[in-house]
Amino acid sequence: MGYTLAQLAKKVQGKVKGDINLRITGLGTLKNATAYELSFLSNPKYQSQLNHTCAGAVLVKSEELAALVDNAVIVHNPYLAFAKLSHLFSPITQFWTGTATSCTISHSAIIADDVIFAPNVVIDDDVVIGNGCFIGAGCVVGRGSKIGADSLICPNVTIYHDVSIGKEVIIHSGVVIGADGFGFVPMKKGWEKINQIGGVNIGNQVEIGANTTIDRGTLENTQIGNGVKIDNQVQIAHNVIIDDNTAIAGCVAVAGSTKIGSFCTIAGGVGIVGHLNIVDQVHITAMSLVSKSILKAGSYSSGTGLEKTDKWRRSAARLRRIDDMSRQISKLKQQVNRLLTKG
Amino acid sequence: MGYTLAQLAKKVQGKVKGDINLRITGLGTLKNATAYELSFLSNPKYQSQLNHTCAGAVLVKSEELAALVDNAVIVHNPYLAFAKLSHLFSPITQFWTGTATSCTISHSAIIADDVIFAPNVVIDDDVVIGNGCFIGAGCVVGRGSKIGADSLICPNVTIYHDVSIGKEVIIHSGVVIGADGFGFVPMKKGWEKINQIGGVNIGNQVEIGANTTIDRGTLENTQIGNGVKIDNQVQIAHNVIIDDNTAIAGCVAVAGSTKIGSFCTIAGGVGIVGHLNIVDQVHITAMSLVSKSILKAGSYSSGTGLEKTDKWRRSAARLRRIDDMSRQISKLKQQVNRLLTKG
Amino acid sequence: MGYTLAQLAKKVQGKVKGDINLRITGLGTLKNATAYELSFLSNPKYQSQLNHTCAGAVLVKSEELAALVDNAVIVHNPYLAFAKLSHLFSPITQFWTGTATSCTISHSAIIADDVIFAPNVVIDDDVVIGNGCFIGAGCVVGRGSKIGADSLICPNVTIYHDVSIGKEVIIHSGVVIGADGFGFVPMKKGWEKINQIGGVNIGNQVEIGANTTIDRGTLENTQIGNGVKIDNQVQIAHNVIIDDNTAIAGCVAVAGSTKIGSFCTIAGGVGIVGHLNIVDQVHITAMSLVSKSILKAGSYSSGTGLEKTDKWRRSAARLRRIDDMSRQISKLKQQVNRLLTKG
Repeated sequence: MGYTLAQLAKKVQGKVKGDINLRITGLGTLKNATAYELSFLSNPKYQSQLNHTCAGAVLVKSEELAALVDNAVIVHNPYLAFAKLSHLFSPITQFWTGTATSCTISHSAIIADDVIFAPNVVIDDDVVIGNGCFIGAGCVVGRGSKIGADSLICPNVTIYHDVSIGKEVIIHSGVVIGADGFGFVPMKKGWEKINQIGGVNIGNQVEIGANTTIDRGTLENTQIGNGVKIDNQVQIAHNVIIDDNTAIAGCVAVAGSTKIGSFCTIAGGVGIVGHLNIVDQVHITAMSLVSKSILKAGSYSSGTGLEKTDKWRRSAARLRRIDDMSRQISKLKQQVNRLLTKG
Repeated sequence: MGYTLAQLAKKVQGKVKGDINLRITGLGTLKNATAYELSFLSNPKYQSQLNHTCAGAVLVKSEELAALVDNAVIVHNPYLAFAKLSHLFSPITQFWTGTATSCTISHSAIIADDVIFAPNVVIDDDVVIGNGCFIGAGCVVGRGSKIGADSLICPNVTIYHDVSIGKEVIIHSGVVIGADGFGFVPMKKGWEKINQIGGVNIGNQVEIGANTTIDRGTLENTQIGNGVKIDNQVQIAHNVIIDDNTAIAGCVAVAGSTKIGSFCTIAGGVGIVGHLNIVDQVHITAMSLVSKSILKAGSYSSGTGLEKTDKWRRSAARLRRIDDMSRQISKLKQQVNRLLTKG
Repeated sequence: MGYTLAQLAKKVQGKVKGDINLRITGLGTLKNATAYELSFLSNPKYQSQLNHTCAGAVLVKSEELAALVDNAVIVHNPYLAFAKLSHLFSPITQFWTGTATSCTISHSAIIADDVIFAPNVVIDDDVVIGNGCFIGAGCVVGRGSKIGADSLICPNVTIYHDVSIGKEVIIHSGVVIGADGFGFVPMKKGWEKINQIGGVNIGNQVEIGANTTIDRGTLENTQIGNGVKIDNQVQIAHNVIIDDNTAIAGCVAVAGSTKIGSFCTIAGGVGIVGHLNIVDQVHITAMSLVSKSILKAGSYSSGTGLEKTDKWRRSAARLRRIDDMSRQISKLKQQVNRLLTKG
């Protein structure tokens, strides 16, 4: 069980300092790792923990750091090496094989031989599921939807009809993909629904967090590019387009028809209004509201700083009168200029 | 398959310009519609697209606009006409009939003859479901709850006990209706739960988006009026009352016992604190916090504008000292007045 | 059916004024309670309702208040007494017994004799479930997870592998516990996933609202203390630690590795960024963003007040120039000081 330090070093193109035959059976933090676990030092802030760690070995980025512990693996990027090795130490999470008898799989569905269906899965007509997929208990896949090879769909996910999902995608529990976009036309007596006829296209290597929702397009498809990572409870509205490798943290909401470029990072709780264009490499800080297109890469923010509530109340009250303050300053400037001229 | 232009025009009280026998098989955007698809021009901003569209025909609001394309249907409100015609072109989303054998339906439930139950539906005692309903796979309906005629409950919806749902309601996947309101009484050693004994009443023609939650009332019912439209991931707390035809966009949270009038529009990410009263025809812009009752119709907002993060940091730091700035202005005004008087 | 006033008074150490044999069959508000229902007066603001109530009896805190109605129970804390009595008047919500035949329960799971499984429950290998638990329809519990005695898991909850849940816990529908934390290492060509190897530990007497998500830790466990109360649609990221008896309202998001003390109250829609430390007894008002550690108990806020949208636009525009305003004030002060000195 486990791997020798030499084996692990090889997997991350690293160099061992110390006992190459040390057997590692898990990963741990510098603070709590045991003598059979591998840890890592990425942030220099934690360097002092090297002196006290009980970890069997540590991933570090220099000989100097390696010298501080008995066993180390020296790599260019210890955090990335740790991420890669994390794939080796995940516990087995389930033991299902084949198709549980409680599943309902349409005869017209095209299912690769090795797909695993946990209990109570429901697959509608004309669904296509590629090799190596795992479909968790209670998942429902709607008519004509496609799931690419080696994708992992966790339990209780709902995928509506005409949704296309790429390869090596991970979808966490409670996700809903392809529900109707929020489209209504106002009338005097209420709202007329616009049927949402488009679909959803999701690229390869996408990960979608628990209870996230991605709506289908009105006429065309909502699109999520390759390598996009989406955290929990994110809401992606109809006709949104998100380019490759953008990462979106928890509780973000993107309104309809907005386009987000590639390699953007959107922090938690951000709201982005509809019909905007956000270019590549844009970073938005937590809980900001994006109400205009962003046409230049960079970091953007809105909101106010945290204060004690009583002080905040005064600040908020003053802020309501900021327009008045500004006019008072203008008047003072005129008066002072007159006084200075006179003087 | 499809409809002639004459047939479609008749359904929306429109007038055909061009080939009344043109057969339309779908809907599309001006930009991407094909020769067999119908498009629409609603926003004058997009008028120039009429020159380049390949759409078979276009819904427009005047003879002048119709003159710019080969085939058109002239209607008073093209966007509304498009919405109405969208009902004709939705794909069939599922082929279930009757009651799937994997369902668990209580013998005491009263189910109309033509209700369709997809697989794994669970219906508890004394539930009542009206004619023409479709209940999606994995839905659970609790004891004594009622669903009115012609309602569509998408897969994996959970409805607790004693919830009443009207006619022609659409509930998207992952919705939870009737979970306990968040009611606890503080004690020295923790929190005493207040059992939530009320129910939830939902009117007719309501639509509820994916993963939205509507809690049951403490003693009386949480109430959602007729024609209310609620987007995804909205949270409606216990004892909230929402009047007819109000529309609530994604990720809005309404805290307990707040009353919202009719024909309000609440944009995405808005928070509304508890025990407030909001009158009819109130509009709240995205991500605003409503912390006081709103007793006059109109549009309301809070928050700050988006800035580059470094500039925003300075603004936020200054804002903490706005009270001080205000006092400095007052002092300056006194000093300048004295100088002016002296002068 | 019901309880006499004497019986109810005894349960809350109260004193009856009026008819000790009055039979109470339910609870109601002062405004709408019937002659067979018990109501309560907690907030003095509503005292005038005592004059008009039709309630059979009222929980009050003094003889003086009791004198205003025919029947009353005098208790130290009427709101707490009401909470305690609410446990007696909840309707029975379901009638399942034993294990529904549609469940899939692993042979290696260790299940107490009296656990009730509603239909379509899926229990993976090595799960442990204690006495008196109820597991709702469609729930999925992953390999090796544990649920303590007398816990109530509502329908369609998903619990991943290696999650530990305490005793007397209530988990509402749509909750997902143990999904992967959002951990990726940036690379030139995209993001490398960090497998989330830790678990989730949830204490006793915890309540978790509908569609809330609590992610598993990266290497160690995400931890929720005893008596913590979490409302709907809350997002708790990986490695977060929440101490005992903290209460978190709807739509709050807590980012990774943040530690929150005990007896804190976090109002709705608050965002808390990652890697912070928040001490005990901290209160955060609605929709605030916590971007720094809070090392002193008290109430904290951010954001701006609600205004009419047109006025708000002007305020927001001015705020962008607050740094400039501040510099103008400094310059004015210098000029005025010079003038005053000269004078």
